[in-house]
Amino acid sequence: MTIRMSEMTWMEFNSKIKEGAVTILPIGACEQHGPHLPLNVDTVLAQGFAERLAERIGGVVAPAINYGYRSKPLSGGGPLFPGTVDLSGETLIRLTFDILEELIKDGVRNILVLSCHFENEAFVCEAVDLVTQKYGDRAKVLIANWWDPIPEEIISKVFDEVPFPGWAFEHAAVTETSLMMAMAPELVHEDRMVDTQGATPCPYHIYPVPKGAVPDTGVLAPARSSSAARGQIIIDSVLIELEKICKKEFK
Amino acid sequence: MTIRMSEMTWMEFNSKIKEGAVTILPIGACEQHGPHLPLNVDTVLAQGFAERLAERIGGVVAPAINYGYRSKPLSGGGPLFPGTVDLSGETLIRLTFDILEELIKDGVRNILVLSCHFENEAFVCEAVDLVTQKYGDRAKVLIANWWDPIPEEIISKVFDEVPFPGWAFEHAAVTETSLMMAMAPELVHEDRMVDTQGATPCPYHIYPVPKGAVPDTGVLAPARSSSAARGQIIIDSVLIELEKICKKEFK
Amino acid sequence: MTIRMSEMTWMEFNSKIKEGAVTILPIGACEQHGPHLPLNVDTVLAQGFAERLAERIGGVVAPAINYGYRSKPLSGGGPLFPGTVDLSGETLIRLTFDILEELIKDGVRNILVLSCHFENEAFVCEAVDLVTQKYGDRAKVLIANWWDPIPEEIISKVFDEVPFPGWAFEHAAVTETSLMMAMAPELVHEDRMVDTQGATPCPYHIYPVPKGAVPDTGVLAPARSSSAARGQIIIDSVLIELEKICKKEFK
Amino acid sequence: MTIRMSEMTWMEFNSKIKEGAVTILPIGACEQHGPHLPLNVDTVLAQGFAERLAERIGGVVAPAINYGYRSKPLSGGGPLFPGTVDLSGETLIRLTFDILEELIKDGVRNILVLSCHFENEAFVCEAVDLVTQKYGDRAKVLIANWWDPIPEEIISKVFDEVPFPGWAFEHAAVTETSLMMAMAPELVHEDRMVDTQGATPCPYHIYPVPKGAVPDTGVLAPARSSSAARGQIIIDSVLIELEKICKKEFK
Amino acid sequence: MTIRMSEMTWMEFNSKIKEGAVTILPIGACEQHGPHLPLNVDTVLAQGFAERLAERIGGVVAPAINYGYRSKPLSGGGPLFPGTVDLSGETLIRLTFDILEELIKDGVRNILVLSCHFENEAFVCEAVDLVTQKYGDRAKVLIANWWDPIPEEIISKVFDEVPFPGWAFEHAAVTETSLMMAMAPELVHEDRMVDTQGATPCPYHIYPVPKGAVPDTGVLAPARSSSAARGQIIIDSVLIELEKICKKEFK
Amino acid sequence: MTIRMSEMTWMEFNSKIKEGAVTILPIGACEQHGPHLPLNVDTVLAQGFAERLAERIGGVVAPAINYGYRSKPLSGGGPLFPGTVDLSGETLIRLTFDILEELIKDGVRNILVLSCHFENEAFVCEAVDLVTQKYGDRAKVLIANWWDPIPEEIISKVFDEVPFPGWAFEHAAVTETSLMMAMAPELVHEDRMVDTQGATPCPYHIYPVPKGAVPDTGVLAPARSSSAARGQIIIDSVLIELEKICKKEFK
Repeated sequence: MTIRMSEMTWMEFNSKIKEGAVTILPIGACEQHGPHLPLNVDTVLAQGFAERLAERIGGVVAPAINYGYRSKPLSGGGPLFPGTVDLSGETLIRLTFDILEELIKDGVRNILVLSCHFENEAFVCEAVDLVTQKYGDRAKVLIANWWDPIPEEIISKVFDEVPFPGWAFEHAAVTETSLMMAMAPELVHEDRMVDTQGATPCPYHIYPVPKGAVPDTGVLAPARSSSAARGQIIIDSVLIELEKICKKEFK
Repeated sequence: MTIRMSEMTWMEFNSKIKEGAVTILPIGACEQHGPHLPLNVDTVLAQGFAERLAERIGGVVAPAINYGYRSKPLSGGGPLFPGTVDLSGETLIRLTFDILEELIKDGVRNILVLSCHFENEAFVCEAVDLVTQKYGDRAKVLIANWWDPIPEEIISKVFDEVPFPGWAFEHAAVTETSLMMAMAPELVHEDRMVDTQGATPCPYHIYPVPKGAVPDTGVLAPARSSSAARGQIIIDSVLIELEKICKKEFK
Repeated sequence: MTIRMSEMTWMEFNSKIKEGAVTILPIGACEQHGPHLPLNVDTVLAQGFAERLAERIGGVVAPAINYGYRSKPLSGGGPLFPGTVDLSGETLIRLTFDILEELIKDGVRNILVLSCHFENEAFVCEAVDLVTQKYGDRAKVLIANWWDPIPEEIISKVFDEVPFPGWAFEHAAVTETSLMMAMAPELVHEDRMVDTQGATPCPYHIYPVPKGAVPDTGVLAPARSSSAARGQIIIDSVLIELEKICKKEFK
Repeated sequence: MTIRMSEMTWMEFNSKIKEGAVTILPIGACEQHGPHLPLNVDTVLAQGFAERLAERIGGVVAPAINYGYRSKPLSGGGPLFPGTVDLSGETLIRLTFDILEELIKDGVRNILVLSCHFENEAFVCEAVDLVTQKYGDRAKVLIANWWDPIPEEIISKVFDEVPFPGWAFEHAAVTETSLMMAMAPELVHEDRMVDTQGATPCPYHIYPVPKGAVPDTGVLAPARSSSAARGQIIIDSVLIELEKICKKEFK
Repeated sequence: MTIRMSEMTWMEFNSKIKEGAVTILPIGACEQHGPHLPLNVDTVLAQGFAERLAERIGGVVAPAINYGYRSKPLSGGGPLFPGTVDLSGETLIRLTFDILEELIKDGVRNILVLSCHFENEAFVCEAVDLVTQKYGDRAKVLIANWWDPIPEEIISKVFDEVPFPGWAFEHAAVTETSLMMAMAPELVHEDRMVDTQGATPCPYHIYPVPKGAVPDTGVLAPARSSSAARGQIIIDSVLIELEKICKKEFK
Repeated sequence: MTIRMSEMTWMEFNSKIKEGAVTILPIGACEQHGPHLPLNVDTVLAQGFAERLAERIGGVVAPAINYGYRSKPLSGGGPLFPGTVDLSGETLIRLTFDILEELIKDGVRNILVLSCHFENEAFVCEAVDLVTQKYGDRAKVLIANWWDPIPEEIISKVFDEVPFPGWAFEHAAVTETSLMMAMAPELVHEDRMVDTQGATPCPYHIYPVPKGAVPDTGVLAPARSSSAARGQIIIDSVLIELEKICKKEFK
């Protein structure tokens, strides 16, 4: 049977949740990722990790949220680039809240929200806080991404050719490009990769966002050295970690 | 080049909107559709019509909204069935508003919102009303579905074996089943189709929604006589009509 | 004793609800209805049906909501006509929610919301959904109008001179004009009735609402053949149906 | 011609506002007023003053808001009495905002909001503040009631038999009862007037509102000595003052 | 030990609330107070009364809310003066609600909200109403200020040189100036006191707020005769009254 | 003259902003900081840095926001500890928005929001984004804290005795304790410092927040080695950096 909730009938979904299956909600974004990656990188990765994880833990993948919170210059986003379509904080809070509330009312007791767009985090947490204030112990909700669980040594393996620039600059750079090469190679334009000189970190935010806050290409660090193999290293490592987390918390 | 915005780079999307391409936003739902159809029927149809239309008019398809407004008994929905995951009115208004606002800020001038879940309509209109109050003539926004543009004679063609029960009962019945057979046959379980005795129309709403408001199977009218061929008749007809509408309004 | 809650003392109201009396909340609108009908047609009809029904079932009529949701071109409204004063969706949801919540807290167990402005429906349902989510079985809330319960044969009786144009065009046309002639003849200007050529139905919405979306007069179909007698036929029929509904649901 | 907007056609309303007519929005409440007065006292007075004023200044009376902000013990209200149906602050703000916004968009330049329920004031002011922040000088909006403009000497005339207890206690007491006797005598039950011993003023608010915060009857001060004649004295005086205010501010 | 919650460790605060200590929440404003008083008058007074009261009743003073609701001309405020920084109604409601909710969740059972900016009152009451709707009897919440509890005879004592102009004009005038002289003399510029001719009371509100609604100096009545001694008379009297209120209500 | 806006008269504030002075808005929190630090650590630091910076750049310090966004286990907070009083996301957004809007309307062109509670960041950015969407270039708004601008070498200087545990664990630990010793030594209880074994980092969030998510004491890393001298090193370094930032951005 499919692990995609969207492709299940309601009866199939019903029997899965009666077994206590973990429901995974992928949240992505519609955001510029330079000249070589498509706008849906964050959604593809959220969906991709969610499905692979569901296979391993007998979980169910809920339909993805395809839009995310405002992309910010400090984390590599590009609010001023055409194609970046951002939700406001309140909208993302309400959207996540409603979906979780309905899942909980349907009887889902174990939920993993897998958000693969950095800026979503605070607002997704707020939604989960509010929904668990309302429903107490009826469900346990975890919020994870793919980068925080990566062990230190995997970083070294992936960055064996170029230095790790820090997560703040990993936007459309080595990790995201490698993951896309492994998960959706047909969407990667290797020939358009640009060798951006790494932007310097900015220890503050400034508004209105100035035009030049992000380099013209939308890329913060070079994607050079990206490969499907490196992407697979990350995937394997993240899945092991996420599976451990689920085993530990959803017993 | 792809017609999916999600799979474009920001530069590709940018050049499309500079040409004045119509951007189509598909809105579906995650809603029970009986024992023979998956939860994502409304999204599959929204996405399916959007992509076929985009091919014909050189349009762009924005990432879909995968969840819709509360499913209601009177229009065949099933708020009490596990797997139906509904957004509140305010959430759908804000979500649609934010996406449209961002598209308009990006320079999109022609937008077609293609909602294929009946209950979305009032809230999507509210969102569009609010966004055009704010942005005036900067963009023209159309809201359409697949059932309103169908010419009378097509209805007769599709319902040549069983009588047309009225749109109110066309939930998981002949039209939706046929469309799914034409667009995503792998998601249709023909062997599980049930021969529901047509529910009688209820001229009022009642809350709290009583358990028996929708038959146990979630189906309001029999899907008998559904076929991919009948689905294709609808698709062809709807695309012609939608293309005419776009030509007329987005000149 | 009066059936109007507004004219009762709190003690009188209290004894009515202790008997389990149905409380009817009329919702109208302030909306253009062509050159021959006043702005309050929807409110007069809501109030008029509510009072007549209350007489029959021993009910109580709460003070009316005199403003309704945005009038839309597709259902004959005229957002661009002076005198049309529309509430936003969120406002109507909150307003209806608050009134129902207070009635329920006061001990009212049976409520009929009688909305006589088509565009109100989705937002009134949302309010009722939210309030019954909060108060569960403490009250049963029905939402009805005057057009959905009309039996087919009554339509034929009323439209014996001119053809029934469909409900979408029945704005300031035969049914509303006849009802006003029966309920509030002093507000009808028969001499100003215009013979509008029936607008053609539009299978989509368009924003910003174009100036010509509704004919200059604000009338979508001719009111010709309207009469108090025809209005009375509708009234009698609707009251029978509404009484049946109340008897069935509020036992 | 009528001075009631609700009874005008849109064309009649349109010609009134083109002349610059002041539009008066009456706001009342649905609130207990003791055993001798109906729940709609505040609405009857708002409507009554609005219509009498409109006659004098060539104004137009918009449909009334029949529900008001939470009735409070300190100002004589009775949130715990059945029949008191209160709006929350946010709802009243949005409701008033929407109506004013639509009037302003329709071209109304002079608006008088006549609120006759004390507790409405802060929220109505907030709505007007917000709407004039948005529309600037396009309209001038005044907010008035019937008690603040009364000259000192009129108070003495009305309270020639019993002492004036202060406005805080004038709930269902001499002024409101007299005004109702003058404006809607059929709604006054003189035989049920109770001789409440004046409650003592409380210099603070306490929540949850304790059961005994308002005397059992809902009356704070005796209505003894009320008469239609005294009501008329107030009416005449208030109309003179309100007319002066309108002349001064809406030139 | 300190009576300031802000300066306690969480363990110290915890032991205080376990004893049932009253928690006092001071709410002020950032609002013009003429040329001789600082912008924080309302906050200084709220904080000053709260701390003095806490000393007497063994209470705890929560961190102050330093901003208040929109300052209004009728109560002496100056929305158009630079330095007046106003919150909207909705913001103040939510802010107060959140703080009270958290205190109640922490186990606080007795709360006194001490607001010393007149315009806050309605919105603070709304917040308290909403929070006690949610938490019922888990906490008792009082709302008080410093002017309502002052006995009549104290007013006479304070206004022995100049006549009492009524509370509406006591903005930056004798009472506030005297209180500041007693509580924070270093913030009073006696040499800059202006002898404003008392403004006349306006029995209505007008929007947009006209430039001249408040005299140029921001002062509504002369501060002449203000003194620390008079301030101390008020302080002593108010503390006695507030202590009585707390003793009576928080037993 | 004072650098505190709260202690200025409106005229003094007015002349400062006419000079183009930077207005600094400090945002803190009311949050447990272990047994040795008070609840207001984040506010004291926000206020302390703001005043010191204002002295150097001729700025003005607006009244502080004394409450912050929900304290989270992952960043060392303690939502379950009595004394932690958290605002919801929406409240903090609206509160910050209103204050900034009013400052901008008053003519302030340069604003630095100095938030010293980690969890505030996303919501403060949202507020600033919204306010600059509304006011465009009328003002430049920076958002900073004290930890991001610290140069690497300063970290080494401060952590010369114990290793730097990473910012995630610096809650009530060496940096905050040292800063409090330098800025408000009277509020530090050195004798109550506990030698918590450093918690391990958790790469995901879990709700409802489990009781043991933060050690019983509320401390995540030992404060051992804290000193006023180390605090001063941080202060000096941060002020230099913040001054540079202000000089660069507010020219």
